[in-house]
Amino acid sequence: MVKRFRFGAPIETEAVLEKGAQQDKQQLSLVQTADGLEYEMPDDMIVYGLGENTRGINKRGWIYVSNCTDNPHHNEGTRSLYGAHNFLLLSGEGQQLGLFIDTPAKVTFDIGYSRYNLLRITAGQDYDLYVIEGSTPAQVVQEFRQLIGRSYIPPKWAFGYGQSRWSYLSSDEVREVVRGHREKGLPLDSVYLDIDYMERYKDFTVDREQFADFEQLVSEMKQEHIHLVPIIDAGVKVEEGYDVYEEGEKEGYFCKDEEGNDFIVGVWPGRCCFPDMLNDKARAWFGNKYKVLLDKGIDGFWNDMNEPAVFYSEKRLKKVFEKLQDYQGQNLDVNTFFEFQALAAGVSNNEEDYRSFYHNYRGEKIRHDKVHNLFGYYMTRSASEAFERLEPEKRILMYSRSSYIGMHRYAGIWQGDNLSWWSHLLMNLKMMPSLNMCGFLYTGADIGGFGGDATEDLVIRWLSFGVFTPLLRNHAARGTRQQEAYRFPRTNLFQNVLTARYCMLPYLYSEFMKAALRSTMMFSPLGFVYPSDQTARQVEDQLFVGENIMIAPVYEQNASGRTVYFPETMKLLRFHDGGVLEGSVYEKGWAYVEMPLGDVCVFIRDGYLLPLAKGGSHVAEVDFEDLRLYTCGSDVKSYEYYMDDGETKDYSLDKYIRILKAE
Amino acid sequence: MVKRFRFGAPIETEAVLEKGAQQDKQQLSLVQTADGLEYEMPDDMIVYGLGENTRGINKRGWIYVSNCTDNPHHNEGTRSLYGAHNFLLLSGEGQQLGLFIDTPAKVTFDIGYSRYNLLRITAGQDYDLYVIEGSTPAQVVQEFRQLIGRSYIPPKWAFGYGQSRWSYLSSDEVREVVRGHREKGLPLDSVYLDIDYMERYKDFTVDREQFADFEQLVSEMKQEHIHLVPIIDAGVKVEEGYDVYEEGEKEGYFCKDEEGNDFIVGVWPGRCCFPDMLNDKARAWFGNKYKVLLDKGIDGFWNDMNEPAVFYSEKRLKKVFEKLQDYQGQNLDVNTFFEFQALAAGVSNNEEDYRSFYHNYRGEKIRHDKVHNLFGYYMTRSASEAFERLEPEKRILMYSRSSYIGMHRYAGIWQGDNLSWWSHLLMNLKMMPSLNMCGFLYTGADIGGFGGDATEDLVIRWLSFGVFTPLLRNHAARGTRQQEAYRFPRTNLFQNVLTARYCMLPYLYSEFMKAALRSTMMFSPLGFVYPSDQTARQVEDQLFVGENIMIAPVYEQNASGRTVYFPETMKLLRFHDGGVLEGSVYEKGWAYVEMPLGDVCVFIRDGYLLPLAKGGSHVAEVDFEDLRLYTCGSDVKSYEYYMDDGETKDYSLDKYIRILKAE
Repeated sequence: MVKRFRFGAPIETEAVLEKGAQQDKQQLSLVQTADGLEYEMPDDMIVYGLGENTRGINKRGWIYVSNCTDNPHHNEGTRSLYGAHNFLLLSGEGQQLGLFIDTPAKVTFDIGYSRYNLLRITAGQDYDLYVIEGSTPAQVVQEFRQLIGRSYIPPKWAFGYGQSRWSYLSSDEVREVVRGHREKGLPLDSVYLDIDYMERYKDFTVDREQFADFEQLVSEMKQEHIHLVPIIDAGVKVEEGYDVYEEGEKEGYFCKDEEGNDFIVGVWPGRCCFPDMLNDKARAWFGNKYKVLLDKGIDGFWNDMNEPAVFYSEKRLKKVFEKLQDYQGQNLDVNTFFEFQALAAGVSNNEEDYRSFYHNYRGEKIRHDKVHNLFGYYMTRSASEAFERLEPEKRILMYSRSSYIGMHRYAGIWQGDNLSWWSHLLMNLKMMPSLNMCGFLYTGADIGGFGGDATEDLVIRWLSFGVFTPLLRNHAARGTRQQEAYRFPRTNLFQNVLTARYCMLPYLYSEFMKAALRSTMMFSPLGFVYPSDQTARQVEDQLFVGENIMIAPVYEQNASGRTVYFPETMKLLRFHDGGVLEGSVYEKGWAYVEMPLGDVCVFIRDGYLLPLAKGGSHVAEVDFEDLRLYTCGSDVKSYEYYMDDGETKDYSLDKYIRILKAE
Repeated sequence: MVKRFRFGAPIETEAVLEKGAQQDKQQLSLVQTADGLEYEMPDDMIVYGLGENTRGINKRGWIYVSNCTDNPHHNEGTRSLYGAHNFLLLSGEGQQLGLFIDTPAKVTFDIGYSRYNLLRITAGQDYDLYVIEGSTPAQVVQEFRQLIGRSYIPPKWAFGYGQSRWSYLSSDEVREVVRGHREKGLPLDSVYLDIDYMERYKDFTVDREQFADFEQLVSEMKQEHIHLVPIIDAGVKVEEGYDVYEEGEKEGYFCKDEEGNDFIVGVWPGRCCFPDMLNDKARAWFGNKYKVLLDKGIDGFWNDMNEPAVFYSEKRLKKVFEKLQDYQGQNLDVNTFFEFQALAAGVSNNEEDYRSFYHNYRGEKIRHDKVHNLFGYYMTRSASEAFERLEPEKRILMYSRSSYIGMHRYAGIWQGDNLSWWSHLLMNLKMMPSLNMCGFLYTGADIGGFGGDATEDLVIRWLSFGVFTPLLRNHAARGTRQQEAYRFPRTNLFQNVLTARYCMLPYLYSEFMKAALRSTMMFSPLGFVYPSDQTARQVEDQLFVGENIMIAPVYEQNASGRTVYFPETMKLLRFHDGGVLEGSVYEKGWAYVEMPLGDVCVFIRDGYLLPLAKGGSHVAEVDFEDLRLYTCGSDVKSYEYYMDDGETKDYSLDKYIRILKAE
């Protein structure tokens, strides 16, 4: 049951498909405060949700802020990441309460940080609150997901393995990466083009020095079943003679400063303008620009820097340079020196800058900070709506760094710029169910970590988890250690792990599609499956993938196994050395399970089956019909296997589900 | 068996007591390279050691750098912390090899980062290598510890609970903190004075505005059994009329630049000079300055910023201000903008600055970077040697932020400026045995975390581990959430945890003293106790404290228990609600153990006992004679109980050990 309560006059976000009638606040189960809501949480209540954010699956014990932020150094102390996903699920004994705070401005969630039993939401004066009551966590999520509409569905090839780096600097380097994989028998479906494929970081251009044969490269790669996926940035370079800039400037499509001049920010190319993604006309115009690349054979994109990230604003930078002078010649002590350093560091993503430019949204001039969390969403929508016009029958891969609920209908997300940390592998795991609750199904993290230096074992362990995530991409930043699978000595381990992915594709794709079409979770915390098992509810490092299997990845260096909680009987299946081994059957309870580096372990639930294909070197080579069914127990439920062509948009549970039965 | 190999002409560190004869390199079991050593590690070899550093107890799979560094934001990607502890213990099947690289300059340890089986040590041309072979890890450590000499022993009161913050700003605020504890029945033995007790951050001065009655405060606190522990910084403020500066300047006791002028760096007070701690005369002079505070009744100190941390050098700051101009008015793109930000950020702790000043060490002019890792060691030694002269009979509390092996004879260390992160609680645990191997017994971390905001549960969980560490101090930085125990609502949980500490003091002090006097480990990884148990060897989050008990702290938010590996039968003892409960007996293997927030859990080994006192509100109130003996099993070994007066230096195993026997 969904109830909507309105506070003030919220700005439209189009997060929700049908708002439904407004309810009387008498019915509100939370306490209204001057600028938000409060709720007293019982001791044993778990708080799920918030999509892309740090810390636990259970969000209790921290302050989170929904305020899309570019923070590549995020850690336990971080409050905001790249997305803003204002959905909470309060899960207590006999009570499941979903809350969605719908506003495009900043929202703060103090979930037992100030006081353990107090939930305090600060959302300002204007927001819609949706309250969803249900009998189970899964049911509340399903109602919420139906409210916000069907999640984005990518082409099937986008479930293959992708390799990325900031940046492969030439056509030949791209070819080299593909060769590296093919020669060592490492499956691969896509290679990513980071910012250097462009001419001086200008959107919708190609650097004709390093990528002279771009069109040739695209078609050559297609023949090798490799999709090239270029990046698109939010900022448009200010440059005379650059058509995108000139058109945008002429048509008034850029965000304006208070005086109505184009607002100038520094991003990748230096001085840029932001297309006003909230303006319908500007959005249609920007979206059509993707055609430049579609016409070259490109069928996948990632939208970056669309929080939007601001290295600096022209005005602030000027002020900072002036202020820096004041410190010169002074005796800088602990106070003034830290001020000096903060001044330079504070140039980027400064809140004041976000209060200094304006959108034309639905005919109204609106200051950016009031709609901040919509920017990446509407940028990505701009592309997605254009694809709908330009390629109505074809699925195009599209995912974004920034997002808000509602964007899940238009694209996936990657989990932003992360680090080569073991704790970020664990964070990747914890984010999966949280994102699923908020509608984001096509998602994954930068495997091996974006910033920092990865070790071989970190990449292997991370991949051994990543092979379960719909988006499976290895990505690393400039200046860090190269982490392509073929560069490390233990190729056979990488081969085994990636092969596991391609063997599991039938199940993973089927589970993804059912989750999208039925508004269910693909990745579930154990508490969703066993809501009355108090131990299961506490487990933060195991997940269900679909209904049939549980995973318990190793995320500690030098560990050759780990303890696993079995909420019921399960059988271990181990991808090992290119083959599949059936392992022990574990009874309900805790057990230590050996999981050597390079093995991929899944646990099949008692009475369930797991269909596996034979694998392949790319998705098109996988035979989705030639399946072997692995089972646990004797009385095995049949499996609803969803399989469509993976290319067109003719999704249908009725047409494409068939029943698989174990012998 | 210790063998010494000499390479080049190393600079003396005085880490080792007696060097022993030089060995022929024919006998070397490592491969000598152009600038260091290599060793091929078998798959199952564990590499222990490196004292204060990040990541695992097993150091395999990362690059570590011994280069004392002030890094309050350290994380998994960090390579250097505040100390430099060049001892490794390679522990394989049937082989235990200790390595100590003795050089005061930077050393790099690539322990399977570049290639999993390769250990590569880069130490330059000049170093002594000590190789210690033994039959067990514990035996190798003991030989090494005998080589480097007896560890520092603090007064017994320093095993009490200490409360700190940057900073308590006045005498009255100090009184308030003590009252806060006493009124709520929270034991306390010391309150720390961070930099603001000084007059404008000048060492050995007192701010007479906020601490007008300093001497009165000290004596008043003593009567309440509270010791005040002031901070001392490495930099001496450049200020005419300030006696310490004027004397140092006149006598030539400060570090010089290339031209022989005093080298000017920016630290807390702004422009400072570094006393040349390596110069015998300067060191004696600086040490004598502590008398100013000893005379006021102070009997404990912490030495800070002695890596030495450098906010800036005067020369660099000037250059940076000039360079910053170049960026003004430019179009700053992704390359130039990051350069601009790095310029400001790179002012601090810049390697070039460390190559720009000089010491007078044993009569020779030596560039700082060649002896960098000795600075904190020799600063602390300066104090300790002065205490020996000024107060020969009395134990004075002294610990340092920076250190090198050898300094362990003069003082303890705290584990540097950390963060209010759950992962830093775990890191605290992992560092304990690593530091013990290197001689540092009196150590602990900033409980609750220095930087960042702590939650109540983090402070409780961290204290629940911290009560086992010799140094037990809650400390937090300016601008962060106040985290004194009495400020949180669940006082009873804090009370219970701190009471556990005071009940365990007889055992903890006794184990500490035996570890110091016998050169053994107080905190052991499970692999030290059960070297042939392959599971025990992998456990990274449990420790032995002394010989008799094992601990397995909870370090995850919202967890009410955890899985524990029992390498043999053990009995749970639980401090709960002010009392002691005897819990289940666990057999060898894995088990999940409930450990609710606020309980302190210890596991008594089969056949061993744990003596507990009744507690007290400060150390002097604890009755070390009125003990209750808790046991596990029926055939219980007697216990060697060490107890001396805790004040004088008349340490003696013979005199002060007596045997406790269970009924």
